Amino acid sequence: MSLLIRSSYVSHFTLFQPKNSKSSSSSFTNQISFVSSFNHKPFVNLVYKKNPIMQSVSSPSSSMTVKSSLIDPDGGELVELVVPESEIGAKKSESETMPKVKLTKIDLEWVHVISEGWASPLKGFMREDEYLQSLHFNSLRLKDGTFVNMSLPIVLAIDDETKEQIGLSQNVALVSPQGDIIGSLRSVEIYKHNKEERIARTWGTTSPGLPYVEEYIAPSGNWLIGGDLEVFNPIKYNDGLDHYRLSPKQLRKEFDKRQADAVFAFQLRNPVHNGHALLMNDTRKRLLEMGYKNPILLLHPLGGFTKADDVPLDVRMEQHSKVLEDGVLDPETTIVSIFPSPMHYAGPTEVQWHAKARINAGANFYIVGRDPAGMGHPTEKRDLYDPDHGKKVLSMAPGLEKLNILPFRVAAYDTIEKKMAFFDPSRAKEFLFISGTKMRTYARTGENPPDGFMCPSGWNVLVKYYESLQESEESSKQQAVASA
Amino acid sequence: MSLLIRSSYVSHFTLFQPKNSKSSSSSFTNQISFVSSFNHKPFVNLVYKKNPIMQSVSSPSSSMTVKSSLIDPDGGELVELVVPESEIGAKKSESETMPKVKLTKIDLEWVHVISEGWASPLKGFMREDEYLQSLHFNSLRLKDGTFVNMSLPIVLAIDDETKEQIGLSQNVALVSPQGDIIGSLRSVEIYKHNKEERIARTWGTTSPGLPYVEEYIAPSGNWLIGGDLEVFNPIKYNDGLDHYRLSPKQLRKEFDKRQADAVFAFQLRNPVHNGHALLMNDTRKRLLEMGYKNPILLLHPLGGFTKADDVPLDVRMEQHSKVLEDGVLDPETTIVSIFPSPMHYAGPTEVQWHAKARINAGANFYIVGRDPAGMGHPTEKRDLYDPDHGKKVLSMAPGLEKLNILPFRVAAYDTIEKKMAFFDPSRAKEFLFISGTKMRTYARTGENPPDGFMCPSGWNVLVKYYESLQESEESSKQQAVASA
Repeated sequence: MSLLIRSSYVSHFTLFQPKNSKSSSSSFTNQISFVSSFNHKPFVNLVYKKNPIMQSVSSPSSSMTVKSSLIDPDGGELVELVVPESEIGAKKSESETMPKVKLTKIDLEWVHVISEGWASPLKGFMREDEYLQSLHFNSLRLKDGTFVNMSLPIVLAIDDETKEQIGLSQNVALVSPQGDIIGSLRSVEIYKHNKEERIARTWGTTSPGLPYVEEYIAPSGNWLIGGDLEVFNPIKYNDGLDHYRLSPKQLRKEFDKRQADAVFAFQLRNPVHNGHALLMNDTRKRLLEMGYKNPILLLHPLGGFTKADDVPLDVRMEQHSKVLEDGVLDPETTIVSIFPSPMHYAGPTEVQWHAKARINAGANFYIVGRDPAGMGHPTEKRDLYDPDHGKKVLSMAPGLEKLNILPFRVAAYDTIEKKMAFFDPSRAKEFLFISGTKMRTYARTGENPPDGFMCPSGWNVLVKYYESLQESEESSKQQAVASA
Repeated sequence: MSLLIRSSYVSHFTLFQPKNSKSSSSSFTNQISFVSSFNHKPFVNLVYKKNPIMQSVSSPSSSMTVKSSLIDPDGGELVELVVPESEIGAKKSESETMPKVKLTKIDLEWVHVISEGWASPLKGFMREDEYLQSLHFNSLRLKDGTFVNMSLPIVLAIDDETKEQIGLSQNVALVSPQGDIIGSLRSVEIYKHNKEERIARTWGTTSPGLPYVEEYIAPSGNWLIGGDLEVFNPIKYNDGLDHYRLSPKQLRKEFDKRQADAVFAFQLRNPVHNGHALLMNDTRKRLLEMGYKNPILLLHPLGGFTKADDVPLDVRMEQHSKVLEDGVLDPETTIVSIFPSPMHYAGPTEVQWHAKARINAGANFYIVGRDPAGMGHPTEKRDLYDPDHGKKVLSMAPGLEKLNILPFRVAAYDTIEKKMAFFDPSRAKEFLFISGTKMRTYARTGENPPDGFMCPSGWNVLVKYYESLQESEESSKQQAVASA
């Protein structure tokens, strides 16, 4: 804990108190000043306000010891809900007698998330008191009066028929989409699923076309069932990617093994381009300048549900490996792992979840960019969220005080230098912004992006994916024509 | 403060730890148990969780001293934003030179609310950081790291033209609907007014037909302007009711004058019937049984914007006087005053505001009923909010820990006893529920409600109001016919 406290003070101090900061942190200071002036917002003050204690910190400590844990999980202890091997037999037999609740693919992703402790201290699907706190306050109050962040309702919906079958039973068995009983929910509570209210308060809109809503909430039942979760085995997908799915416990072990004295997490759901790489490498450099000896990057692509036009997980993982093979990122100081959560595309509300889950995995620095977890408005020609709200909300969110938030510098393609570089507003015209949509368009049309945008082997993975997509589209068109 | 702490512990302890409670508090215990069992929800636990310290409190203290303040205002100091008399001249002259922002009637009600400190520690219309915290967390973080509740965004909208006129000015003058400059907003910040997001997150729906939205938000501008408020004079309405509009400071003085050792607030926007009176008198009785010597009732009708079919403020105030004249409520231990806030009808989100504002006025007990600040869903045949969510959310809300929440026992008309009585589920069929809508229908059709529903002189006020309404409707119909 001592290291946590020290590093948290030092970094906040260095980041957000430029006037008194030491020279070793000047580049970080510049970065933050840039963000601050770019937004025309008192961002410095926002972050400052929630950490009054840092005022008294005089300088970064130079003594550096490596501790087994850089940051405590929320609630103090990592939740793990896999039944001990010795009890599996009895628990399985017992579950056979319970009313059954059939899980969707996304439900199972949440079972995965909860059972490994990403949502610590949550021990199961939310009961109504947790649901209401999440919905109204984006946080849960613990018994000691402190708050942990909990911005997304993590809930399990059931239909009228299932509710009736459960009746007054205290416990239910959870059945995977493949038909296997994978665990149970105990001391259950069933309450109304007011979808309209849930959607409005989570997304800030009820507009049709929200991917998670259409895929998952709209077809779901009118009741929510909360209770304590147990799973018989760790959740696996057998898709050739399970070795990437490290649990928070495994990640913490790996950070210890590498003797990390800082862990900075980068959440993404897109291929890594050189702008991302620049940012991640730059962050490491700055952490070193601040006095950290071994900052480790957690490159942490989201592995659960994503919308149809996002690049699929297997393609992204292949692309990420190429980026490491190519040396764009240093494998020695990078851990690539899959974050098993499904994606809500709920902007400022969801980015809190993304950050909070990484605390539980042991990250004490979190990089946040423009419009995190955002998307275009489904029915209007504008971003669904103000692109600056994500990082602002994150910096103010209850329960995230112990996490160091690192606002993103905007990277863009420097047409003069012919590489991805931090955007310089004084020569704005010389920069080219290549959005995710634009990148996908390049790959789909077979057009090459500008030199230096992405390492060639990584780019090749995307081109191949879009070629295969086009082939399969054409073949299904031909089939349709043939059968017409 | 010592009394505050004592009373807060005692009451929470007594209310929510039935097993260990002293006999003197048994009736309160019964009341809470009733509510708890009635809802089939672990309400006791909910409230318990957020007050872990009460576990160590062994018994209610019997020593009783009267302090000048039963409960501290949020932020520790009551905000008052009326310019000192000696500065008014200079401030007024200065304001003439500032860009002007024209206020609507509802804006002026908020100026009233903010300037008297009901929203302490808020010192003006919200800047974006406050707005975002309110919208996402229903609370504001103070410099010392603690939270105050702030569930409704208290914001001022301006249109594109006004924004342009303001330009880079730091300060703006506020102009009343009558055209007078009534104060200023200083060090302003202008940011986007995303109405859809504001509505969705505040109401949990974006359905058309929300009264506050249609009346106020929909026609308002696309920008919000925040800043520090100053008013030249206390806000007055000159409607013959200003003497009822006691500020939080005046109320606190009045409680001191009466040597109150507990203040329990009752928020309402409807006429007082004998069920309300039963509840208020019963609450006082129970507070006396708990050891308080002089609990004072703050009967606190909402005086700002209400929807068209609610009974208007002047009629309600006349009705309330009759109730006191008739002795249904005891004038010695009751203060009737107007709460100047406009009404949002935003259920669980708004009830927090109603409770929080009463802390600032010195109330340390708050009575909450079924479906507070609720209404029917504007487009579906159901309540907009789960009727139990209001009190649940209130009991869990950040920043309301120091307030004692008293859940309502449901009162209904006992057809056997021929009076309003606490509902007894064991003989449910003998009770008649008379809703606000039903009551208004009685009064409108000239039908008498059952004997004992309301004191006759109070009822008469309503009948006369609805008669006058019908007369004016008929006369405008005749005029329409005549001019056709």
